Amino acid sequence: MSHTVVERAGSLALDIDAERLLRRIRELGRIGADPVGGGITRTGFSAADREARAYLMDEARAAGLFPAVDAAGNIVVRRRPTDRPTADGPVVMMGSHLDTVVDGGRLDGAYGVLAALEVLQTVVESGARLRRDCVAVAFANEEGALFPQPFWGSMAVAGRIENLPREPRDHQGRPLREALRLAGGDLDALGSACWPKGSVSAYLELHVEQGPVLERGGSRIGVVDAITGRIVLTLEIRGRAGHSGTTPMEGRRDALCAAARVVLAAEHIAGRRDLCRVATVGRLDPYPNTPNTIAGAVRTTVDLRDTDVWRMADAEAALRAMLDDIAAATGTEIEVVAETRSDPVSTDARLREAIALSADELALPYEELPSGAGHDAQFVAGLAPIGMIFVPSIGGVSHVPQEDTAAEDLVAGARVLLRTVLRTTEREEQL
Amino acid sequence: MSHTVVERAGSLALDIDAERLLRRIRELGRIGADPVGGGITRTGFSAADREARAYLMDEARAAGLFPAVDAAGNIVVRRRPTDRPTADGPVVMMGSHLDTVVDGGRLDGAYGVLAALEVLQTVVESGARLRRDCVAVAFANEEGALFPQPFWGSMAVAGRIENLPREPRDHQGRPLREALRLAGGDLDALGSACWPKGSVSAYLELHVEQGPVLERGGSRIGVVDAITGRIVLTLEIRGRAGHSGTTPMEGRRDALCAAARVVLAAEHIAGRRDLCRVATVGRLDPYPNTPNTIAGAVRTTVDLRDTDVWRMADAEAALRAMLDDIAAATGTEIEVVAETRSDPVSTDARLREAIALSADELALPYEELPSGAGHDAQFVAGLAPIGMIFVPSIGGVSHVPQEDTAAEDLVAGARVLLRTVLRTTEREEQL
Repeated sequence: MSHTVVERAGSLALDIDAERLLRRIRELGRIGADPVGGGITRTGFSAADREARAYLMDEARAAGLFPAVDAAGNIVVRRRPTDRPTADGPVVMMGSHLDTVVDGGRLDGAYGVLAALEVLQTVVESGARLRRDCVAVAFANEEGALFPQPFWGSMAVAGRIENLPREPRDHQGRPLREALRLAGGDLDALGSACWPKGSVSAYLELHVEQGPVLERGGSRIGVVDAITGRIVLTLEIRGRAGHSGTTPMEGRRDALCAAARVVLAAEHIAGRRDLCRVATVGRLDPYPNTPNTIAGAVRTTVDLRDTDVWRMADAEAALRAMLDDIAAATGTEIEVVAETRSDPVSTDARLREAIALSADELALPYEELPSGAGHDAQFVAGLAPIGMIFVPSIGGVSHVPQEDTAAEDLVAGARVLLRTVLRTTEREEQL
Repeated sequence: MSHTVVERAGSLALDIDAERLLRRIRELGRIGADPVGGGITRTGFSAADREARAYLMDEARAAGLFPAVDAAGNIVVRRRPTDRPTADGPVVMMGSHLDTVVDGGRLDGAYGVLAALEVLQTVVESGARLRRDCVAVAFANEEGALFPQPFWGSMAVAGRIENLPREPRDHQGRPLREALRLAGGDLDALGSACWPKGSVSAYLELHVEQGPVLERGGSRIGVVDAITGRIVLTLEIRGRAGHSGTTPMEGRRDALCAAARVVLAAEHIAGRRDLCRVATVGRLDPYPNTPNTIAGAVRTTVDLRDTDVWRMADAEAALRAMLDDIAAATGTEIEVVAETRSDPVSTDARLREAIALSADELALPYEELPSGAGHDAQFVAGLAPIGMIFVPSIGGVSHVPQEDTAAEDLVAGARVLLRTVLRTTEREEQL
């Protein structure tokens, strides 16, 4: 019976409902949207995020599916009601996240979740009985824009709980506990969100590229070969505050002058010296931040990324040496007060092949490329082989209100996901 | 009768109540104070500022004096009840301000107001009848830390209303109107706060130096020869936001990288090139200000100061040329969206002489020096001859919680103010 289904899938018998997918993208894109600039602010565990989560669960229920929230706040949508990860035997998991950065776009994360729901609904409505069941997941707090622990949900699913803070707090120092409870999670039961080894046979994540590579190359599908590693250093720069009019230039210890040198050092390391692919200072908070006062302190972050772990190490060493030089030259202290790091992760060769074959069948030009952004997939990789599918980003931009992808590419990506899922269950049978 | 008083003043018959002055400085210093770091945040027209204003008026009333609030929110304390500026004929005005920067010190401004109150109370309690009456003024919103119009109150007193915004708004865009009303002012009657030419025969302001000159030179009194001019340019830097992981370094238009170059350009202009005394970037707000996103825009301020108007012009021209170069090199647009400027102002030679003589009589070593900071006096200079008295700042710091002055210097400064006021009324008689 299931064999028949797989064969039909290979012959294009199943297709997603493109209009339904595009409608949901439109509707979800209104939640947390700025009525003027159009940007979306749906930071993880915020009120807007809760609204988006409720939308997803309502749509899933209306489709006859069963959403459940785990202790970490992840939403898992299944064919039948259960909240035990292993209830359906090893599954093919599809997913991404619903939360956004501040003033971000409507597709980053949300597209992958809605496409996963669409594929699951398509399979279930078809009456197909696959050998491997599949589930759709919306991982909680991937961006970490409000609670500064990105990949919160996927880390919990992958059993990386020891790497999570015990009492996580947001940027204002408010604890996560209550916000997690409002989302249906439970900080004290975080371990129950972990999926055991063997419970996931493959993980597939569909996502917008967020960069310019596919658009420049004329490809409509990206087959991700590796996900970039990332090091984020949070720095505290301490100088000496003073009156901007009465403090002579000689002898100043201006923390913002030191921070400016850090910004340019990061740019230099990835730019002129090419020690890593990209380096960015995106957040910078001077204190007290008034025109009239020399900054006494600055808090800032440096973000370094590469797909090669040795290049990342070299870039970090170079940056730290430059921080020492800057501190000495400006009379300030520069302390690394927090570090987050994730190693580069390769995707599974067989899943890459399945994605490529699916794109071929649909006559969609594709290419292999690395992911410059981090994704939930990199943590699920600790649990199961992973595959990632990209669709082009118009203008290569993301994390901004202008983030967009052509409707036909959004549909094409979901079609490739469906075929890859079916092909994956087929391969499972043959193994 | 009044001649007798003047003679007695010259012979040390009148003295301030040092304990009363120091008590008021302590008490006022608790209003708006951070219980942990001790810094004072009493931004103009904030709730803490209102509390400080109420304190001053209560102390004045308890001393048998008559405080009144003008339309700009300035508090004018008089010997008898009136709210007409010219009611007492030409007066000697003493004053400063009660508002602070964010996390500032307890003396900047507040000391000058409380010393003025102390001198007025001393004169009134002595029963002295001077030929020129004197008044104590607390000018509203000198710092402009909440409502970005510094010198608000002194500009209104000096009739510079055409230079004030019609509907002033704070940094969050909230209008000033209601906050001014709560302070006892009236935005629609601002013109009534103006003192006509001839109504003030001299203005004297006592203030902490806020710099290291007196301390380094071993002087206990500073006789200010000029108040520095100031140009503050508010810049909007517009680049292109993007994902920090997926946007290649090549082709980025990172507004924070451009802002970093602006910070260092300002430092360079006053430092290495010595085009003006000081130049400072104290405020810098990237947008959206998250680790994960290249800054699409930055708003920042550059503050240039000198006592020579031609050097200020040269420094501004050099800065503007550098802004053009930075915009071209970083692919950003840099727009000057607001400018505030004040020319350098000289103090009155006769008042400088009166201050020096008073210090001499009290055996206090003094020196002449320029003021690096702006003061209300520079606007009152449009109305009357001005004199300024400085006392040493410990460590030369100000606008920070550590701002302090030795108690004996605080008392000495008020004594010099008292003698200078009496001497000034004496001279008025002789003229």
